[in-house]
Amino acid sequence: MTQTYPMKRSKTIQTKLVLPPDTNHLQTIFGGKVLSYIDEIAALAAMKHANTVVVTASIDSVDFLSSAKVGDALELEALVTYTGRTSMEVYVRVYSHNLLSGKRTLTTESFLTMVSVDSSGRPSPVPAVVPETEEEKKLFETAEERRKHRKNRSS
Amino acid sequence: MTQTYPMKRSKTIQTKLVLPPDTNHLQTIFGGKVLSYIDEIAALAAMKHANTVVVTASIDSVDFLSSAKVGDALELEALVTYTGRTSMEVYVRVYSHNLLSGKRTLTTESFLTMVSVDSSGRPSPVPAVVPETEEEKKLFETAEERRKHRKNRSS
Amino acid sequence: MTQTYPMKRSKTIQTKLVLPPDTNHLQTIFGGKVLSYIDEIAALAAMKHANTVVVTASIDSVDFLSSAKVGDALELEALVTYTGRTSMEVYVRVYSHNLLSGKRTLTTESFLTMVSVDSSGRPSPVPAVVPETEEEKKLFETAEERRKHRKNRSS
Amino acid sequence: MTQTYPMKRSKTIQTKLVLPPDTNHLQTIFGGKVLSYIDEIAALAAMKHANTVVVTASIDSVDFLSSAKVGDALELEALVTYTGRTSMEVYVRVYSHNLLSGKRTLTTESFLTMVSVDSSGRPSPVPAVVPETEEEKKLFETAEERRKHRKNRSS
Amino acid sequence: MTQTYPMKRSKTIQTKLVLPPDTNHLQTIFGGKVLSYIDEIAALAAMKHANTVVVTASIDSVDFLSSAKVGDALELEALVTYTGRTSMEVYVRVYSHNLLSGKRTLTTESFLTMVSVDSSGRPSPVPAVVPETEEEKKLFETAEERRKHRKNRSS
Amino acid sequence: MTQTYPMKRSKTIQTKLVLPPDTNHLQTIFGGKVLSYIDEIAALAAMKHANTVVVTASIDSVDFLSSAKVGDALELEALVTYTGRTSMEVYVRVYSHNLLSGKRTLTTESFLTMVSVDSSGRPSPVPAVVPETEEEKKLFETAEERRKHRKNRSS
Ligand SMILES: CC(C)(COP(=O)(O)OP(=O)(O)OC[C@H]1O[C@@H](n2cnc3c(N)ncnc32)[C@H](O)[C@@H]1OP(=O)(O)O)[C@@H](O)C(=O)NCCC(=O)NCCS
Ligand SMILES: CC(C)(COP(=O)(O)OP(=O)(O)OC[C@H]1O[C@@H](n2cnc3c(N)ncnc32)[C@H](O)[C@@H]1OP(=O)(O)O)[C@@H](O)C(=O)NCCC(=O)NCCS
Ligand SMILES: CC(C)(COP(=O)(O)OP(=O)(O)OC[C@H]1O[C@@H](n2cnc3c(N)ncnc32)[C@H](O)[C@@H]1OP(=O)(O)O)[C@@H](O)C(=O)NCCC(=O)NCCS
Ligand SMILES: CC(C)(COP(=O)(O)OP(=O)(O)OC[C@H]1O[C@@H](n2cnc3c(N)ncnc32)[C@H](O)[C@@H]1OP(=O)(O)O)[C@@H](O)C(=O)NCCC(=O)NCCS
Repeated sequence: MTQTYPMKRSKTIQTKLVLPPDTNHLQTIFGGKVLSYIDEIAALAAMKHANTVVVTASIDSVDFLSSAKVGDALELEALVTYTGRTSMEVYVRVYSHNLLSGKRTLTTESFLTMVSVDSSGRPSPVPAVVPETEEEKKLFETAEERRKHRKNRSS
Repeated sequence: MTQTYPMKRSKTIQTKLVLPPDTNHLQTIFGGKVLSYIDEIAALAAMKHANTVVVTASIDSVDFLSSAKVGDALELEALVTYTGRTSMEVYVRVYSHNLLSGKRTLTTESFLTMVSVDSSGRPSPVPAVVPETEEEKKLFETAEERRKHRKNRSS
Repeated sequence: MTQTYPMKRSKTIQTKLVLPPDTNHLQTIFGGKVLSYIDEIAALAAMKHANTVVVTASIDSVDFLSSAKVGDALELEALVTYTGRTSMEVYVRVYSHNLLSGKRTLTTESFLTMVSVDSSGRPSPVPAVVPETEEEKKLFETAEERRKHRKNRSS
Repeated sequence: MTQTYPMKRSKTIQTKLVLPPDTNHLQTIFGGKVLSYIDEIAALAAMKHANTVVVTASIDSVDFLSSAKVGDALELEALVTYTGRTSMEVYVRVYSHNLLSGKRTLTTESFLTMVSVDSSGRPSPVPAVVPETEEEKKLFETAEERRKHRKNRSS
Repeated sequence: MTQTYPMKRSKTIQTKLVLPPDTNHLQTIFGGKVLSYIDEIAALAAMKHANTVVVTASIDSVDFLSSAKVGDALELEALVTYTGRTSMEVYVRVYSHNLLSGKRTLTTESFLTMVSVDSSGRPSPVPAVVPETEEEKKLFETAEERRKHRKNRSS
Repeated sequence: MTQTYPMKRSKTIQTKLVLPPDTNHLQTIFGGKVLSYIDEIAALAAMKHANTVVVTASIDSVDFLSSAKVGDALELEALVTYTGRTSMEVYVRVYSHNLLSGKRTLTTESFLTMVSVDSSGRPSPVPAVVPETEEEKKLFETAEERRKHRKNRSS
């Protein structure tokens, strides 16, 4: 029988202070910096679930809805929402938190596919993820369709 | 009459040596590092075209076809392939170059939307881009459809 | 009447992947790296509470009980545990999480004093913190004694 | 007979230019940055004394007496002031040097305990340190008491 | 018979966005940052030619003719211009590109000597470089004299 | 009458631990990293002498006589050796210190020219430097010839 883990086991939270080197002329954070934080937290969530080394297979499209400035905090949350044989879908949500006003805005959200690999870099099996709350179940049930959509786009 | 610029004016080339801090346990580069290089070169290409500050509005889905290891070079090319009123579509292609064997592999490609902004961060008009070669024309002509697809996904 | 905020409002969580540049010959994380993460999360917690810029006035002694290796995740939690007129005491706890075995160990804990400053760098008043749970109350009630101990050591 | 070394053999000097990424909104250096410089120079001094790899066992409390701004130089000095069987006490002093006015201010001072480790990370013996000047002797003679105080606080 | 490669095979292009941490008070890039980019691109060009690991044996004098500011792009080009038994001369040219005005200025140029090394760090033979265009031939033919000048200065 | 300062006033000492991200495949430090340390310490020495912001005008040729590995310390010393109206010549010496064996080797030495600038980036006068010891006098007296040599090479 396969090992299974509850979805919440992979939940990962991250808070990043936006600093001058992360920003352009207008002190707005670079999109690339946000993408690299998204990939980092997705890897952490996937490693917590699979207890193996993981690599990023793909990231779905990302729309940046609002920006973050020097001195804001970026708050990221990640969750493994679906598992294949060796791959995991990870959902990441990013909020921008203005620490002086206390205001919190959704910056972006995305789905990534992380693949568990063994020490020679070959895909290796992962435990199955089990959703428990309503929100978790919704993310889990819609995953199959996102998976199909991904298959189409690459071919 | 609007200012126009040939597509090749925005062409940007980048070479990055993969170093230990960019990689995981298996000395494979992090996906997030590649995403941040893609965003950086897209911003450079868009700034060369528009001669303004730009922000990243979105990045289309990215599939990582092959990886890069410590000591490889990543070679990136970017080109502004389409212009709206204030937005530019930028095409980015990434190759991994094994410097010891000389072998060069496609790592990934992606399209980003960069928006030109004025000093208060509001969208500002950009010159129109004009394709010249066959390859440029093909990228230009297929842009409209990618734009529609992007509009659908965000709504 | 003074503004007050519940203690949990300042709660901040952070997860950091240990990478090669953070470590020595034996792939053990530098103490200085951990100290700098502790200071960063304490500043974030204090800024969330006070909604102002803060500076570090002091850090109490830190004992490193166990180490973390390349590939481990460091998990940090911070909470504002006491407020003076312009200063805040922040409690920080650091766990090392071995992502391959799933084992989690206490690495260290510490108390810092952060001072809220105005735009010319002068100390400025902060809202009072209100503990709610049993654990929060314990941290709050023992703060006065730590404060006295700090006063003695500096004189 | 045990190897002994004069205290001055471990003396280490460091000068760091404060740059924008090291600072907050008010261009004041982060306390965590200073702590990480303190740990780095303590490790260098301890490695010079012991000619082994070292890890940080603890840092005594640190009070930040004055701050440093972008463009200032931080000047650090470190000295091994006491040796146990496998541990070394290191004294670190930090000055902030305003390069435009020439003014130099004490920012902070601290004592750290560094432990010499062998290639499997186990504590390994260190040479005994021998103080020579009056200042060195004073640091050496007061070390025993600091050591006792540290033992009490951890238990 | 020795392996030979055309000069253009080693041609390498690099574009770097100048960011706040690379600059001083006046937002002018540090000379040391430019030197480190020059060395990085010279190593990439030499590795492309020799398909081995390389170390920097020397850099000829560098005069900084103009500066670059935050938000400018630095554009670097490198070419292996001469080969000895184990050493390669690499020519590097650096332009500063003001992205808002479109103006491009020569910042500096330099010649470096890179030595191919085997896995124990000992000099190892490199393929001979063959110039093709007029500009390449001129760089190749003047190399012998630069080599003599270098020998004199080191003795 | 012009302000004068003794040469020793500008003396600056730096110790840098070589870390994995500073090195290539063979764990040998990149030449560009050493060049960037040389420029940083030269700027610090020049700022200590002139109490102004400085920019790098040129660096004389640099020969790397020996290398440094991960875990070694690089020890740098800098001294203002000559002053013109607005420029300063700075001498930098770099040693590599193997912390496990205690062995110290000369890695390289170089002369840089730093120019004092006012807040709009224009060259501004500097105090005259006065050599005191025999070694300082020798560096001072040979400076005129190096200055001539530099003038010739740029024309
Ligand atoms: C991108 C941004 C400026 C658009 O602002 P807006 O108020 O939606 O402005 P508009 O509706 O006038 O759109 C401006 C252009 O952006 C395009 N655009 C907006 N959102 C987009 C998206 N998600 N994907 C692609 N294009 C988008 C619009 O189509 C329009 O293009 P056009 O002028 O060529 O027709 C805004 O959403 C923003 O600031 N986002 C954050 C950007 C950022 O900081 N990124 C870095 C990391 S967070
Ligand atoms: C912290 C600092 C602002 C205090 O300034 P000050 O002139 O002593 O101001 P005050 O005497 O009014 O003290 C302000 C508060 O800080 C507290 N404080 C000052 N020094 C402290 C210390 N070493 N430890 C703990 N608390 C301290 C005071 O108790 C007071 O608290 P309260 O208002 O809650 O009663 C000042 O020492 C400073 O700027 N230090 C450098 C901070 C810094 O830059 N740190 C980063 C690295 S250097
Ligand atoms: C420091 C460490 C090696 C001590 O291991 P240990 O099993 O307690 O070993 P021992 O009991 O033999 O102690 C070794 C020496 O360290 C000293 N020591 C241990 N903990 C200490 C502390 N918190 N403060 C000061 N000294 C301490 C002991 O007094 C002893 O000194 P001596 O040999 O001179 O008498 C171990 O706690 C450790 O690995 N900690 C993590 C270190 C680290 O990785 N720091 C970086 C960031 S996490
Ligand atoms: C460069 C280095 C490998 C040369 O080693 P060596 O024992 O002198 O070897 P050799 O005498 O066989 O010289 C090898 C080649 O380097 C060339 N070379 C050596 N020193 C040189 C210098 N300062 N400038 C230019 N070329 C030089 C020689 O001319 C020879 O070239 P060739 O084979 O094409 O005729 C050695 O000096 C070294 O390791 N230096 C440190 C390199 C380094 O780590 N740099 C990074 C920062 S410290």
